[in-house]
Amino acid sequence: MNQTIGFIGLGVMGRSMANHILQAGYHLNVFTRTKEKAEDLLKAGAVWKNTVKELAEESNVIITIIGYPQDVEQIYLGDNGLVQSARPKTILIDMTTSQPSLAKKIYENAKTRDIQVLDAPVSGGDIGAKEARLAIMVGGERAAYEDCLPLFEVMGQNIVYQGEAGSGQHTKMCNQIAIASGMIGVCEAIAYAKNSGLDPETVLKSISSGAAGSWSLSNLAPRMLKEDFEPGFFVKHFIKDMGIALEETNHMQMDAPGLELAHKLYNELAKNGDENKGTQALLKLWKS
Amino acid sequence: MNQTIGFIGLGVMGRSMANHILQAGYHLNVFTRTKEKAEDLLKAGAVWKNTVKELAEESNVIITIIGYPQDVEQIYLGDNGLVQSARPKTILIDMTTSQPSLAKKIYENAKTRDIQVLDAPVSGGDIGAKEARLAIMVGGERAAYEDCLPLFEVMGQNIVYQGEAGSGQHTKMCNQIAIASGMIGVCEAIAYAKNSGLDPETVLKSISSGAAGSWSLSNLAPRMLKEDFEPGFFVKHFIKDMGIALEETNHMQMDAPGLELAHKLYNELAKNGDENKGTQALLKLWKS
Repeated sequence: MNQTIGFIGLGVMGRSMANHILQAGYHLNVFTRTKEKAEDLLKAGAVWKNTVKELAEESNVIITIIGYPQDVEQIYLGDNGLVQSARPKTILIDMTTSQPSLAKKIYENAKTRDIQVLDAPVSGGDIGAKEARLAIMVGGERAAYEDCLPLFEVMGQNIVYQGEAGSGQHTKMCNQIAIASGMIGVCEAIAYAKNSGLDPETVLKSISSGAAGSWSLSNLAPRMLKEDFEPGFFVKHFIKDMGIALEETNHMQMDAPGLELAHKLYNELAKNGDENKGTQALLKLWKS
Repeated sequence: MNQTIGFIGLGVMGRSMANHILQAGYHLNVFTRTKEKAEDLLKAGAVWKNTVKELAEESNVIITIIGYPQDVEQIYLGDNGLVQSARPKTILIDMTTSQPSLAKKIYENAKTRDIQVLDAPVSGGDIGAKEARLAIMVGGERAAYEDCLPLFEVMGQNIVYQGEAGSGQHTKMCNQIAIASGMIGVCEAIAYAKNSGLDPETVLKSISSGAAGSWSLSNLAPRMLKEDFEPGFFVKHFIKDMGIALEETNHMQMDAPGLELAHKLYNELAKNGDENKGTQALLKLWKS
């Protein structure tokens, strides 16, 4: 508990996660692009840092959960970035969903300065983050993983070491791939229920607990029925994730027709102006 | 309990369901195309009937769970079929996944002879049937549904009245539609895990309980990893169900690209000779 944790990125997920760390009694340094997003945390005792460099120099473990791979690359490998500024023996944990290849590159760069890096993306959405029930999938050196386990346990419940650097990101890709096609199925099921004159809420009572059951069906379908399309998990971020996954499947020469279809449909949704909605907004494509 | 139940169709699902009825203390008459499939039930006290007609004349409630809509039409509406042979006040329950329009037609025909019909397809697979944890989605008249509730409770746990005749089948279509695309996602996730050098079993530990979680991922993915492709739920039956759903979505002029893709992939699988495997055999299309 005498560790000082640095936290960069206070979006929907990050704010909840940082708050759990603070509540667990750690010293917490924070930095994020939009300072207002830090206000509640600062009131609760977190310390604002004006730059990545400043935060890096004054933290033992640094967690990032930010937007896009280019942001990750900038913050880790850019001038005055984490790898350049952190002290030797610091552990850096990127919880952003990002490229497996970039995770490897950061790991290797940091290693030359005696800094450990873990890639540790999460799943479980805004609810999982709020309730500290995230799944955390971790790549990097096992010893660093073990050092950080108490910290992970403050944010999540299902924490699994997946292997060498990049393995956390690869696992997250598996997760997003499974979700992608599944979301199409959920939307088509609800659209069918409406079109056939059934009561969609009563249909959910039947299908949510059987062989069609899924997290999406239990958690997102009810929001769809209320036309509550607030994020949760942003359409634009899901498109980013599916884009990374498609780069990887192309590289593997692996067919992924379900993932391609989902990527196409979500891009259509974004083109309609819904990129800042939650992923459950996909249903809007089935407006009858 | 003094009711005599007739049961027609002793496939993977039917055998377990009929057995629960027998164990609950009902008198049970059985008939099925292949008599050997009845052997265990007969040893346990069920009574064999040589024809649909004979079974119909000697049962108060008759349950069918058979193969295809044409079989349902034949057994219900054909010569010496259930509607012709059952006594007035009998309740007929079709638990086959079949056409909503056919369910309506049977209901209307039977009504003229003072026979009630419920369409009550199930979800939960072989495991759900074995453990009496099926979801049962029921269409027809509410009074008949209420009369049969104790019987449904012997076979399932999540029993929901969905509305007029055909509504059970429409609900089951929602269920199959949600599963169809979801299965593509599960296969692609596993294929990705293998191709990226991860340990797929460890990946499942990460992704099964988070936002990618689903019944398919928890129950079928582990069978996929063991290359256990036994049914479970037959590929050929799933193709039948998706065919019915596509007839309906075409009729509704509703886009269903995920369902179409799944139907296409499963047909490919059947063409490869796997129509009698379980639906988890879809992974075989991703053989690398």
